[in-house]
Amino acid sequence: MKDTQEKKKIPQMTITRLAQYLNCLSLLPKEHYIEISSKELAAKIELKPTQIRQDFHHFGGFGQAGYRYKVKDLIAGLERILGLDRQQNMIVIGVGHLGQALANYRNFEKLGLRLVGLFDLNPRLIGITIRDVRVRDIDEIPQIVYQEDVSMGIIATPAEAAQKTADLLISAGIKGIWNFSPVMVTGPQDIIIQNEHLSVGLMTLSYRLKQAKKPVLIPEH
Amino acid sequence: MKDTQEKKKIPQMTITRLAQYLNCLSLLPKEHYIEISSKELAAKIELKPTQIRQDFHHFGGFGQAGYRYKVKDLIAGLERILGLDRQQNMIVIGVGHLGQALANYRNFEKLGLRLVGLFDLNPRLIGITIRDVRVRDIDEIPQIVYQEDVSMGIIATPAEAAQKTADLLISAGIKGIWNFSPVMVTGPQDIIIQNEHLSVGLMTLSYRLKQAKKPVLIPEH
Repeated sequence: MKDTQEKKKIPQMTITRLAQYLNCLSLLPKEHYIEISSKELAAKIELKPTQIRQDFHHFGGFGQAGYRYKVKDLIAGLERILGLDRQQNMIVIGVGHLGQALANYRNFEKLGLRLVGLFDLNPRLIGITIRDVRVRDIDEIPQIVYQEDVSMGIIATPAEAAQKTADLLISAGIKGIWNFSPVMVTGPQDIIIQNEHLSVGLMTLSYRLKQAKKPVLIPEH
Repeated sequence: MKDTQEKKKIPQMTITRLAQYLNCLSLLPKEHYIEISSKELAAKIELKPTQIRQDFHHFGGFGQAGYRYKVKDLIAGLERILGLDRQQNMIVIGVGHLGQALANYRNFEKLGLRLVGLFDLNPRLIGITIRDVRVRDIDEIPQIVYQEDVSMGIIATPAEAAQKTADLLISAGIKGIWNFSPVMVTGPQDIIIQNEHLSVGLMTLSYRLKQAKKPVLIPEH
């Protein structure tokens, strides 16, 4: 995987697939998978091998059927493309169940993402500690963002507080927002906002269940 | 949107986009959006209008640039395609922070998905009630699945319990599994398993942030 083609903007759907590949590869037991073919990887994430080879080709990767990729090289290449080859600091706003679940999600650390702040409005939550991070009042967001060079803010507030929280993060200088509230939030064009809607996953499952019930199925691969 | 073409298996990525369209449309304030163009919808979810028109065309939708779709018809059509036009019952296994967050997620109900059971191993959680649903011992899963005709099981357990939980759900007769644990779970081919990896969203955000920092950007639309 070369760097030469990485300046091109890659379509969102390709990036999602690259992230899926990296996620899948990073979950493989290392002792069993030194190398992997596009066919083996395809079977694990229910995509076509041709799709995978085509995606790898975007980055100057090898595109031959039957080729066995070195897992270590694939992981390193994907991490570099996705900007995960450096540490990034993040904060979570809203320390309800979802916020606490996200704060406790160990896989983020493996991706070089360090939780440096937790924030809430609720005085009963302010002061408690989750994984060595103390919950602070949202008034302290600008100070922590500055001190800790925070690049990502995760919104786990109720719907009605989501946009206000996004505005606060943006004015504190945060460039990337991952919004888990069930409404969409917006911001200026130079701010990267990713609205994560859990419903989308449930809709996809619903579709697949509906298809599975049909008597005739045309297999995808 | 006609039913004629719905028997074809639609690629996974198209389904994800259809779910995103439906999610976006269902969040629009009804009084402002009686109709919507592919361009307006595209701006909201950062896709190309041509992509949207092409996806709608899959289902016999109108494909002309500038055409204004009736939001109500689009929603009804997408719901039918995704199998959301009927009630489905679901259960959540693992009532930690993530399980409680999912149990409290109101948007699922809007999609016709009714929470009919919560299960955990922890005796301290068994017996408590969340949104009128009592937390039960996992031993009671087969009985509830049968009584309530449960079609979906959501796994919100720690990693080490995930596969065991999937096996239990499958033996209880569940056909659709939505796995939120940070490992992949597997099952027989007739079981629909969707592994939901929160890391994938974070990787995508990381990529977009990295791209945004580059001096030269080629706009996608």
